[in-house]
Amino acid sequence: MNRTELLENIRRKGSFLCVGLDTDIKKIPEHLRNVEDPIFTFNKAIIDATAPYCVAYKPNTAFYESLGVEGWSALDRTVKYIRDNYPDQFIIADAKRGDIGNTSSLYARAFFENMGVDALTVAPYMGFDSVKPFMDYSGRWVILLALTSNPGSRDFQFLSDMTGTRLFEHVIETARKWGNEDQLMFVVGATQGAMFSEVRRVAPDNFLLVPGVGAQGGSLEEVAKWGMTRECGLLVNSSRGIIYASQGEDFAEVAAAEARKLRDNMTMLLSAHGVI
Amino acid sequence: MNRTELLENIRRKGSFLCVGLDTDIKKIPEHLRNVEDPIFTFNKAIIDATAPYCVAYKPNTAFYESLGVEGWSALDRTVKYIRDNYPDQFIIADAKRGDIGNTSSLYARAFFENMGVDALTVAPYMGFDSVKPFMDYSGRWVILLALTSNPGSRDFQFLSDMTGTRLFEHVIETARKWGNEDQLMFVVGATQGAMFSEVRRVAPDNFLLVPGVGAQGGSLEEVAKWGMTRECGLLVNSSRGIIYASQGEDFAEVAAAEARKLRDNMTMLLSAHGVI
Repeated sequence: MNRTELLENIRRKGSFLCVGLDTDIKKIPEHLRNVEDPIFTFNKAIIDATAPYCVAYKPNTAFYESLGVEGWSALDRTVKYIRDNYPDQFIIADAKRGDIGNTSSLYARAFFENMGVDALTVAPYMGFDSVKPFMDYSGRWVILLALTSNPGSRDFQFLSDMTGTRLFEHVIETARKWGNEDQLMFVVGATQGAMFSEVRRVAPDNFLLVPGVGAQGGSLEEVAKWGMTRECGLLVNSSRGIIYASQGEDFAEVAAAEARKLRDNMTMLLSAHGVI
Repeated sequence: MNRTELLENIRRKGSFLCVGLDTDIKKIPEHLRNVEDPIFTFNKAIIDATAPYCVAYKPNTAFYESLGVEGWSALDRTVKYIRDNYPDQFIIADAKRGDIGNTSSLYARAFFENMGVDALTVAPYMGFDSVKPFMDYSGRWVILLALTSNPGSRDFQFLSDMTGTRLFEHVIETARKWGNEDQLMFVVGATQGAMFSEVRRVAPDNFLLVPGVGAQGGSLEEVAKWGMTRECGLLVNSSRGIIYASQGEDFAEVAAAEARKLRDNMTMLLSAHGVI
């Protein structure tokens, strides 16, 4: 999906919500645990219930990998299900990959050609040749880790050089030379609050993928205040707050209600910031 | 496998060779491409041929992931085969994972509990809580990216703070507070030559996993000169130079001959440095 289509979907739906499909076999409702392919069954129900309110889905691959071959197959089915039934949804594989050039090419093939997602999260530590192979696919996106939402983000991402430029700023500035805003987004955690204005100084037009709203404590209003551009420029992810909002038989309805609430909030923010 | 056992294997075999199982379906010999599970069949032959000359195997997960469910199953079989037939081999999953704490725990479960490898390569960018879950397994190892062998390593790893400390040094110094040398190794590329002495200043006792000898241009003598400790402290990886040394029906014999050559060189270096 290209940038124009993504922006159109955001305006049309009044939503920049990404639903995180961090599906944990131990957390899905009791009554689904013994069906065939419980992970896919759960995902399908969540997707059918939330699709009207979001513009993107983000499975984190760790949840599927931890189940081995069965997990990968559930992930494949999930991506295919979204693709076939909700072609206007942007699909992000949250895999945080990154390796030397010829190895990154293999990851790119795995996720873009075989699995068919729109975007992949990538770790920046290994530099140019570890990121570039993901940019060779037209209409596909690299979402580079810049400023993450976890406590450990303080360990290295804020280290400053002699001019006061911090590592996350170096990552953003350097990566923007590798690809344009039609193929490159950055991960910026919602817990970073006012840091969004500093991110926007170095990445004025790039989409930001924002985890950490809700369960991790980030505020949607704060993110929009500092991070929203005239076009929107945000994809805000919520995982646990939606998919595990109820553990009962009503889990899909309750997930839909939570997604709708976020969508309503987002519509207001898009309107307040003059995007729609 | 713990440090004592690993050091014992190195001394007994006169080798600190790690064979990289970067098995690419497009590069394995013609006659194997149509057998059942060609990737595992190839790996099994390589392992049987090289096991006398090496102390470790390192499958890079990208090669398996790029084949989808079938690839993961070949990787599982490969690890199990080594475990069952060569229990004195140290098995490294080169996966370069790293995510927020609860997600890293899932990766740890996938690789340490389900797949049963001894060690996993981990990316440092997200800091403490992204690395720590891998350290909660006794007798298992984190191998943290510090100074990689690829051209892009120059993009961020050498950035200096005001005191002149570079990012890779920060990563090593900080990570050494998270775990001791019985559970923490670092990746330092062979192409970094004399940088090994600077790595040893901050990581005097940790094992270093060294890719980039051979195909990527690093020299074994240089690595030993600057990086070897009194105990050895090195695992040097070779992938393409061994596993694709011949594309003919003799691929396994030729791989064994290449591994033996490297082992002979390593025995000399271990002896010259007083390790054996």
